[in-house]
Amino acid sequence: MKARVHVSYKTGVLDPQGKAIGMTLANLGFAGVGDVRQGKLIELELAESDAHKARKLVEAMCEKLLANTVIENYAIELDNE
Amino acid sequence: MKARVHVSYKTGVLDPQGKAIGMTLANLGFAGVGDVRQGKLIELELAESDAHKARKLVEAMCEKLLANTVIENYAIELDNE
Repeated sequence: MKARVHVSYKTGVLDPQGKAIGMTLANLGFAGVGDVRQGKLIELELAESDAHKARKLVEAMCEKLLANTVIENYAIELDNE
Repeated sequence: MKARVHVSYKTGVLDPQGKAIGMTLANLGFAGVGDVRQGKLIELELAESDAHKARKLVEAMCEKLLANTVIENYAIELDNE
Protein backbone atom coordinates (compact mmCIF):
# COMPACT_ATOMS: atom_id res chain seq x y z
CA MET A 1 0.00 0.00 0.00
CA LYS A 2 1.17 3.51 -0.78
CA ALA A 3 1.02 6.21 1.89
CA ARG A 4 1.49 9.94 1.41
CA VAL A 5 2.39 12.14 4.36
CA HIS A 6 2.06 15.88 4.06
CA VAL A 7 4.13 17.74 6.66
CA SER A 8 3.56 21.48 6.97
CA TYR A 9 4.36 24.19 9.48
CA LYS A 10 1.63 24.99 11.98
CA THR A 11 -0.19 28.29 11.52
CA GLY A 12 1.83 31.07 13.10
CA VAL A 13 5.18 29.35 12.65
CA LEU A 14 7.49 31.42 10.44
CA ASP A 15 8.17 29.75 7.09
CA PRO A 16 11.28 31.45 5.64
CA GLN A 17 11.42 29.19 2.58
CA GLY A 18 7.81 30.03 1.72
CA LYS A 19 8.55 33.74 2.21
CA ALA A 20 11.59 33.44 -0.10
CA ILE A 21 9.48 31.78 -2.80
CA GLY A 22 6.80 34.48 -2.47
CA MET A 23 9.35 37.29 -2.78
CA THR A 24 11.10 35.66 -5.74
CA LEU A 25 7.77 35.18 -7.53
CA ALA A 26 7.04 38.89 -7.02
CA ASN A 27 10.51 39.80 -8.32
CA LEU A 28 9.93 37.64 -11.40
CA GLY A 29 6.81 39.66 -12.15
CA PHE A 30 4.08 37.29 -10.93
CA ALA A 31 1.38 39.53 -9.49
CA GLY A 32 -1.44 38.63 -7.13
CA VAL A 33 0.43 36.08 -5.07
CA GLY A 34 -0.42 36.17 -1.40
CA ASP A 35 0.85 33.92 1.33
CA VAL A 36 3.19 31.08 0.23
CA ARG A 37 3.95 28.09 2.46
CA GLN A 38 6.31 25.25 1.71
CA GLY A 39 5.86 21.82 3.21
CA LYS A 40 7.18 18.32 2.65
CA LEU A 41 5.44 15.45 0.96
CA ILE A 42 6.77 12.02 1.85
CA GLU A 43 5.64 8.99 -0.17
CA LEU A 44 6.10 5.56 1.40
CA GLU A 45 5.65 2.10 -0.03
CA LEU A 46 4.27 -0.15 2.75
CA ALA A 47 4.07 -3.94 2.95
CA GLU A 48 1.04 -3.62 5.28
CA SER A 49 -2.21 -4.13 3.35
CA ASP A 50 -4.74 -3.41 6.14
CA ALA A 51 -5.66 0.28 5.91
CA HIS A 52 -6.32 0.71 9.64
CA LYS A 53 -3.00 -0.88 10.64
CA ALA A 54 -1.16 1.04 7.93
CA ARG A 55 -2.53 4.34 9.22
CA LYS A 56 -1.48 3.49 12.80
CA LEU A 57 2.00 2.57 11.52
CA VAL A 58 2.41 5.81 9.55
CA GLU A 59 1.09 7.84 12.52
CA ALA A 60 3.82 6.29 14.68
CA MET A 61 6.43 7.15 12.00
CA CYS A 62 5.22 10.75 11.92
CA GLU A 63 5.36 11.12 15.71
CA LYS A 64 8.82 9.56 15.90
CA LEU A 65 10.60 10.82 12.79
CA LEU A 66 8.72 12.38 9.90
CA ALA A 67 7.30 15.46 11.62
CA ASN A 68 8.46 17.74 14.42
CA THR A 69 5.10 17.93 16.16
CA VAL A 70 6.06 21.02 18.16
CA ILE A 71 6.03 23.19 15.03
CA GLU A 72 4.64 20.94 12.29
CA ASN A 73 1.31 19.34 11.41
CA TYR A 74 1.02 16.16 9.42
CA ALA A 75 -1.74 14.66 7.29
CA ILE A 76 -1.78 11.04 6.14
CA GLU A 77 -3.35 9.80 2.89
CA LEU A 78 -3.54 6.10 2.07
CA ASP A 79 -4.07 4.72 -1.43
CA ASN A 80 -6.63 2.01 -0.66
CA GLU A 81 -8.74 3.78 1.91
CA MET B 1 -7.98 30.92 -4.83
CA LYS B 2 -5.65 28.47 -3.18
CA ALA B 3 -3.21 26.42 -5.28
CA ARG B 4 -1.15 23.45 -4.18
CA VAL B 5 1.92 22.43 -6.16
CA HIS B 6 3.48 19.04 -5.56
CA VAL B 7 7.08 18.86 -6.79
CA SER B 8 8.72 15.43 -6.83
CA TYR B 9 11.79 13.87 -8.40
CA LYS B 10 11.23 12.08 -11.71
CA THR B 11 11.38 8.29 -11.65
CA GLY B 12 14.99 7.18 -11.86
CA VAL B 13 16.41 10.32 -10.25
CA LEU B 14 18.25 9.48 -7.04
CA ASP B 15 16.47 10.82 -3.94
CA PRO B 16 19.04 10.80 -1.11
CA GLN B 17 16.68 12.41 1.41
CA GLY B 18 14.06 9.73 0.75
CA LYS B 19 16.72 7.04 1.11
CA ALA B 20 17.85 8.55 4.43
CA ILE B 21 14.28 8.54 5.73
CA GLY B 22 13.81 4.91 4.66
CA MET B 23 17.02 3.81 6.38
CA THR B 24 16.22 5.70 9.55
CA LEU B 25 12.73 4.17 9.69
CA ALA B 26 14.33 0.71 9.39
CA ASN B 27 16.82 1.58 12.14
CA LEU B 28 13.95 2.73 14.36
CA GLY B 29 12.36 -0.68 13.97
CA PHE B 30 9.64 0.07 11.41
CA ALA B 31 9.41 -3.04 9.27
CA GLY B 32 7.85 -3.46 5.83
CA VAL B 33 8.79 -0.06 4.47
CA GLY B 34 9.79 -0.13 0.81
CA ASP B 35 10.72 2.80 -1.36
CA VAL B 36 10.52 6.26 0.26
CA ARG B 37 10.50 9.47 -1.80
CA GLN B 38 10.47 13.00 -0.48
CA GLY B 39 9.00 15.87 -2.44
CA LYS B 40 7.94 19.44 -1.81
CA LEU B 41 4.45 20.77 -1.39
CA ILE B 42 4.04 24.48 -2.05
CA GLU B 43 0.78 26.20 -1.12
CA LEU B 44 0.03 29.53 -2.76
CA GLU B 45 -2.72 32.07 -2.11
CA LEU B 46 -3.71 33.61 -5.47
CA ALA B 47 -5.73 36.75 -6.22
CA GLU B 48 -6.83 35.19 -9.57
CA SER B 49 -10.32 33.71 -9.30
CA ASP B 50 -10.65 32.13 -12.78
CA ALA B 51 -9.52 28.50 -12.49
CA HIS B 52 -8.20 28.27 -16.06
CA LYS B 53 -6.13 31.46 -15.74
CA ALA B 54 -4.91 30.44 -12.28
CA ARG B 55 -3.69 27.10 -13.62
CA LYS B 56 -1.82 28.81 -16.47
CA LEU B 57 -0.25 31.22 -13.96
CA VAL B 58 0.88 28.45 -11.61
CA GLU B 59 2.23 26.43 -14.57
CA ALA B 60 4.38 29.41 -15.54
CA MET B 61 5.60 29.70 -11.93
CA CYS B 62 6.54 26.01 -11.92
CA GLU B 63 8.45 26.25 -15.19
CA LYS B 64 10.29 29.39 -14.08
CA LEU B 65 10.94 28.85 -10.39
CA LEU B 66 9.13 26.19 -8.41
CA ALA B 67 10.39 23.06 -10.17
CA ASN B 68 13.61 22.07 -11.90
CA THR B 69 11.93 20.40 -14.86
CA VAL B 70 15.09 18.52 -15.86
CA ILE B 71 14.86 16.27 -12.80
CA GLU B 72 11.50 17.13 -11.21
CA ASN B 73 7.83 16.66 -12.03
CA TYR B 74 5.12 18.94 -10.77
CA ALA B 75 1.41 18.53 -10.23
CA ILE B 76 -0.99 21.43 -9.67
CA GLU B 77 -4.18 21.26 -7.60
CA LEU B 78 -6.58 24.18 -7.41
CA ASP B 79 -9.17 24.64 -4.69
CA ASN B 80 -12.14 25.71 -6.82
CA GLU B 81 -11.71 23.43 -9.81
